[in-house]
Amino acid sequence: MAVHNFQPTVYYTAIGAHEPVLHIDSGDTIITTTVDSGGRDKLDQSVTPRGNPQTGPFYVEGAEPGDTLSVHFDQLTPNRRIGRTATVVAPNVLDPGYVASQMPESGEAEWEIDTEKWTATLISPDTQLGKFAIPLEPMVGCFGVAPPRGQAISTATSSTHGGNMDYRGFAEGTIVYLPVFVAGALFHLGDGHAVQGDGEIVGTGIEISFDVQFTIHLIKGGNVAWPRAENDDYILTAGNARPLDQALQHATTELIQWLVELGLEKRAAHILLGQCVEYDIGNVFDPAYTMICKIKKSTLRQIGVLSSTS
Amino acid sequence: MAVHNFQPTVYYTAIGAHEPVLHIDSGDTIITTTVDSGGRDKLDQSVTPRGNPQTGPFYVEGAEPGDTLSVHFDQLTPNRRIGRTATVVAPNVLDPGYVASQMPESGEAEWEIDTEKWTATLISPDTQLGKFAIPLEPMVGCFGVAPPRGQAISTATSSTHGGNMDYRGFAEGTIVYLPVFVAGALFHLGDGHAVQGDGEIVGTGIEISFDVQFTIHLIKGGNVAWPRAENDDYILTAGNARPLDQALQHATTELIQWLVELGLEKRAAHILLGQCVEYDIGNVFDPAYTMICKIKKSTLRQIGVLSSTS
Amino acid sequence: MAVHNFQPTVYYTAIGAHEPVLHIDSGDTIITTTVDSGGRDKLDQSVTPRGNPQTGPFYVEGAEPGDTLSVHFDQLTPNRRIGRTATVVAPNVLDPGYVASQMPESGEAEWEIDTEKWTATLISPDTQLGKFAIPLEPMVGCFGVAPPRGQAISTATSSTHGGNMDYRGFAEGTIVYLPVFVAGALFHLGDGHAVQGDGEIVGTGIEISFDVQFTIHLIKGGNVAWPRAENDDYILTAGNARPLDQALQHATTELIQWLVELGLEKRAAHILLGQCVEYDIGNVFDPAYTMICKIKKSTLRQIGVLSSTS
Amino acid sequence: MAVHNFQPTVYYTAIGAHEPVLHIDSGDTIITTTVDSGGRDKLDQSVTPRGNPQTGPFYVEGAEPGDTLSVHFDQLTPNRRIGRTATVVAPNVLDPGYVASQMPESGEAEWEIDTEKWTATLISPDTQLGKFAIPLEPMVGCFGVAPPRGQAISTATSSTHGGNMDYRGFAEGTIVYLPVFVAGALFHLGDGHAVQGDGEIVGTGIEISFDVQFTIHLIKGGNVAWPRAENDDYILTAGNARPLDQALQHATTELIQWLVELGLEKRAAHILLGQCVEYDIGNVFDPAYTMICKIKKSTLRQIGVLSSTS
Repeated sequence: MAVHNFQPTVYYTAIGAHEPVLHIDSGDTIITTTVDSGGRDKLDQSVTPRGNPQTGPFYVEGAEPGDTLSVHFDQLTPNRRIGRTATVVAPNVLDPGYVASQMPESGEAEWEIDTEKWTATLISPDTQLGKFAIPLEPMVGCFGVAPPRGQAISTATSSTHGGNMDYRGFAEGTIVYLPVFVAGALFHLGDGHAVQGDGEIVGTGIEISFDVQFTIHLIKGGNVAWPRAENDDYILTAGNARPLDQALQHATTELIQWLVELGLEKRAAHILLGQCVEYDIGNVFDPAYTMICKIKKSTLRQIGVLSSTS
Repeated sequence: MAVHNFQPTVYYTAIGAHEPVLHIDSGDTIITTTVDSGGRDKLDQSVTPRGNPQTGPFYVEGAEPGDTLSVHFDQLTPNRRIGRTATVVAPNVLDPGYVASQMPESGEAEWEIDTEKWTATLISPDTQLGKFAIPLEPMVGCFGVAPPRGQAISTATSSTHGGNMDYRGFAEGTIVYLPVFVAGALFHLGDGHAVQGDGEIVGTGIEISFDVQFTIHLIKGGNVAWPRAENDDYILTAGNARPLDQALQHATTELIQWLVELGLEKRAAHILLGQCVEYDIGNVFDPAYTMICKIKKSTLRQIGVLSSTS
Repeated sequence: MAVHNFQPTVYYTAIGAHEPVLHIDSGDTIITTTVDSGGRDKLDQSVTPRGNPQTGPFYVEGAEPGDTLSVHFDQLTPNRRIGRTATVVAPNVLDPGYVASQMPESGEAEWEIDTEKWTATLISPDTQLGKFAIPLEPMVGCFGVAPPRGQAISTATSSTHGGNMDYRGFAEGTIVYLPVFVAGALFHLGDGHAVQGDGEIVGTGIEISFDVQFTIHLIKGGNVAWPRAENDDYILTAGNARPLDQALQHATTELIQWLVELGLEKRAAHILLGQCVEYDIGNVFDPAYTMICKIKKSTLRQIGVLSSTS
Repeated sequence: MAVHNFQPTVYYTAIGAHEPVLHIDSGDTIITTTVDSGGRDKLDQSVTPRGNPQTGPFYVEGAEPGDTLSVHFDQLTPNRRIGRTATVVAPNVLDPGYVASQMPESGEAEWEIDTEKWTATLISPDTQLGKFAIPLEPMVGCFGVAPPRGQAISTATSSTHGGNMDYRGFAEGTIVYLPVFVAGALFHLGDGHAVQGDGEIVGTGIEISFDVQFTIHLIKGGNVAWPRAENDDYILTAGNARPLDQALQHATTELIQWLVELGLEKRAAHILLGQCVEYDIGNVFDPAYTMICKIKKSTLRQIGVLSSTS
C-alpha cells in the first residue's frame, strides 16, 4: 500500500504498450499530475504536443491478460488558474442543414478556475454571457489500459480498453474497472476537465491541468468486456462506438452481464432493467461515441443483489 | 377557459387529420381518459385494437399551420390496479452476438399499481425480484398533432409532430410545445406509463390506462421545428430519428434555435451549451429513437435570458 | 387483361388510403403519366404542389391485406425536353467538417432530354462540364401501396410499403413485388428520373415528367415484408431505414427469407449469400435511406432454385 | 526498379510502426506470400496466430509524412487447394428479430480452389448447394500503412491508413494510393480472399494464402485523406467508419476533393457526381464498415479531366 509521488516527463497520445514509467503493487496509491488536452502544464506552458497526452503508463505487478484493474479516483483537482474551451458546437452534433448555413465562427474561450470558490468563470470572449460562472465538476476525460493484440489506440477515441470517453461521471470518488489485456495492465490517464457539458459537444470541456491521486487494485480474473464503474449511487457501464445505438448496445449488454455476475438470473435482470435502467451520454464528438448504462445501488440493495454496505 | 369532460369512444393508431372528437378554445381544459398501449381501459377490458391507441383528436379553434400549441399536463393518473410490461430487453438494444445466443424467453409481467402508496409492485412472474416495488412516475408515452402534407403517422413512431417518444419527462406539470401543421392542430394523446426505465428498452413501460387532464393554449406563430417542453427546472427539446446520433442533431439544433429566440446571440448560445447542456434518452425501441436536449432554467435566469419568474 | 388509358387530375404527396382514381383487375395494364417531383407536367407547367406528387391510387379488385402485388414497369419514358437537378451534394452525404466550410452555393441545373439520341445533356449552368451528355436511364423514384394501420406516409420517405426509394434499378422491364396492407392495395407512382446517380446524393435525379405503362398482377397470399423485385439478371430486395446499416439488415433478412421460400434450406441460403450477395445503394438523401440486396438469377439457376426459364 | 523476393517469417495483427522486414526504393517490386486470415500458409499449416496476420512492413526509402504511396497489385494468386468460409451471416447484418429467433448454427465450409479452371467449389458441408462452383475473384482483404500519432491499429478494422476494408475491387491490376504518416510508410498486406461476396457478410471471404506481387511508387506530397484507388474503368475512394452513413460521407468527400485536385471546380464536381456517382460496399462486418465511392474514367475523359491515355 505504498504511496508514489510521480512527476511525468514523457506523455503519449496513443494508449499502448509503452515503456512503463513506474511499477506499482496492487493497493498502491499514485500522486501525480496531468497536462491539459493541448499539452500545457500547471504553469500553462506547452510541454508536449497536443491531443490528450497521457501520464503513464503505470505497470501493476502481477496483472495478466484476463484480470481486472480497479482504479479509485481519490482526487482530481485543477492546478492552474486558466482553462480553455472551444466555442462552437461540433458539426457532427448539429443538423447538416444548420451546419451548411448557420455556423458561427470558431474560436477559443478562457475560463478562470477558482478552487476556493469552486467556480469556473468565463473571462473571454466578451459575449452576452458576461462573467458567467458555473460550479466546478472536475472529471478525467481519457484513461485506459494497453489494448489487446499489440494495438496502440489514439487518445482521440475509445474502445474496450477505455480511452477518450469524456463522461462527467468519471469524477472524484468514482471507481472504474478495466479489463487487463497485457502484463502489468499499463494504466494511462490525462485530459482533465474542470467542467464539461454532456457529450463534450464543442469538442472540449474546460481543458486544464490536474493534480491527481488514484489508488489501483488488481482483481484476479473477472469478466469485464467494457469499462465499468461505481460511485456512491450507481453501478454503470460504458459502451464506446458509433453510432450511439451501438455504444448503447455495448453498455446495456455489459450491465446485464454484470447483474448476472452479481447473482441475478438473466430473466430477472431483463425485467429489472426494463423499468429501472438509466442512460447518460459520454462524448458525442470523438470517432467513437460513449454511452453510459446504469442502475441505482439502492435498487440493487432492495432486491438483495448488493449488500447494505456495498 | 372552459373545462370539458370528454369520454372517448373511438381511438386511432396513427396520428393524422381524423374527424375531431371535440372543438375547444385556447385556454380550455380537457378531462378525459386514455386506454393502455394494448387498447385496454380502466376496467382492464379490451375496447380497441392494440398499438398505442390515441384519445382525440381535439380541434383547437383558430389554430393554423405555422402556429404553436402548448399543452400543460395538469394530471396524469393511472386509473386501474394492474399494469403490464414485456420481460425481455429488445434485441435492437443489445449486442448482436448476445441476441444470437443468450436471449431469455419473452413473456409478460404484471405490476400492481397503488396510487395511495404511489408504488408499482411486481406480482408476476415469480423471479428473484420477488414483490419488487418502485415509486410511480406516471408519464404519457405518445402524443402529438396532425402532421404536415396529409400524412397520418403510426403511433409506433415519432417525428416533428410528436408521436411515440416515450420520454420519462413528459410527466405531470410539464408543458409541451408542438408545431401546428393543420387547421385546429388536432391534438392526440395516449400510451400512459405508470413507470418507465430510460429508453423503454423492453418495448414497454408499465402500460396502464390513465385519467388525464390537460390545458391547451394556442400561440400564434412560433418557430417550433421539433417538440419542445419545459418543467420547473429545465427547458428541453426532443429530436426523433434513427440513429440516435441524428435524433441528437435535431434536438441540439432545436435548443440552439430556442436560445436564439430567447435573445441569446448564436455565439453565446454555442459557448453556453458547450459546458451546460444535458441529454436524456427517450425511447430506443421504436422505428424513430428520441433524444432530449435540455438546459437548466436556473442557468438561463443567471444570464438574464429567462426572467426570475419564468 | 384490359388496358386502361388514365389521365390524372389529382396527385398526392403522401401514400395512403386515398379515394381510388381507377379500379382494375389483376392482369390489367395502365397507360398514364406522372408529373415531375416539382409538380410540373409534360408541358413543363406546374399542375400540383411539389414533393414527388403521385399518380393514383389504383384499386386492384380482390387485393386484401396479406396478398402481394406485382407491378411490371412496361414503359418509362420522359415526355418533355427539359429535366432539372439540384447542383450541390446534400450535407448529410458529406463530412460535417466539409459542410461547415467548403459547400458551394446551391442552384439548379437544366438538362436537355433527347429520347431519340437517348441522352441527357447539361445546358445550364455554364461550368467546366460544358454540354456534358450522358445516356438516359429512366427510372421511377417513388411508388408504393397504402401502408398499414391507417397511415399515410410522405412521398419524401419510404418504408415497407415502398415509397421514395430512388433506386436506379426500378427501371423499365423490372417487376416489383409489394405487400398489400389494405383492400385494393392502392398503388401509387411518380417522381420519374431521366438519369440518376447512385444515392440521389444531390437530392434529385434529372427530374422529369413521364409517360408510363405498367401491368399489375395480384398474387394471393405471399410473405413479402419489404419491397422485392426482379429483372433479367437479379432478384433483389429493398430495405428502407436509417442508418444504412439498418436498411441493409432489412434487405439482407428479406433476401434470405425469399431464398427460403424458393426452397433453399436456411443454412444453404446463408452460405450462398456469404460469397454471392451483391448490394446497391438506393437513396441516401431522404429520411429513410434505401439499401438493395441482390443475387444473380444465373446463380439460382445453377443450384436449381430457379428453373432455367425463370 | 529492383525486384525483391521476400519470404515472411513474422506476421502482425495490428498495422503499426513495427521493425521493417525489408527496405525498398520507389519503383521496386516485391514478390512474396501472405498467410490466410487464420494464420495458415500455403501448406495449410498454422504458422502464426489468427486475425488477418500481415506480411511486412516494407520500408520505402524517402517516404515521409505528407507523402503518398502508390501500390500496384501486380499479381494476387491463391497458392493452395483449400479455402474456408464461415457459414452464417453475421448478426450485425440481419434484423435483430431474426437474430433472436431464426439463426442457423455456425460452422465452417471448405472450398476447393482450382487456379487452372479458375473456380472455387464448395466441398463441405453437404447442403442443397451441392458441389457449387463459382469463378475466382482474388482480392486482398487487408492492407495499409503505419497510422499517425504512434498508433497500431488492429487488422480487424480500418481507418485512414487502410486496414481491413474487404473490398472486392482491391484485386489484381488495381493501384491503391495511401497517405504516408511515418518515415518509410511501412506497408503491410494480408488476408487474401479467393472469392468474396459484397460486404463480407459471413465475416469471411474464401480465406486462403496467396502468392502476391506488387510494385510500390512514392509520390512526394499529395492530399490523400482516405485510401484511393484506380483500375481500368474507375477512380475510387474508400471511407471507413460506422455507421455506413459516415463511411459514405468520408468516401464522397474524398472523391470530391480528388476531382478538385484533377482540376474540376467545386461546383462542377458536385453537379457531376450528382448524376454519375456510383457506390460499392466494402465490408459490413468489421468494427469500421467500408464504403466505396467511384466514378467512371470514361466520364472523366469525356469532360477532359483525365487525358485519353490515363
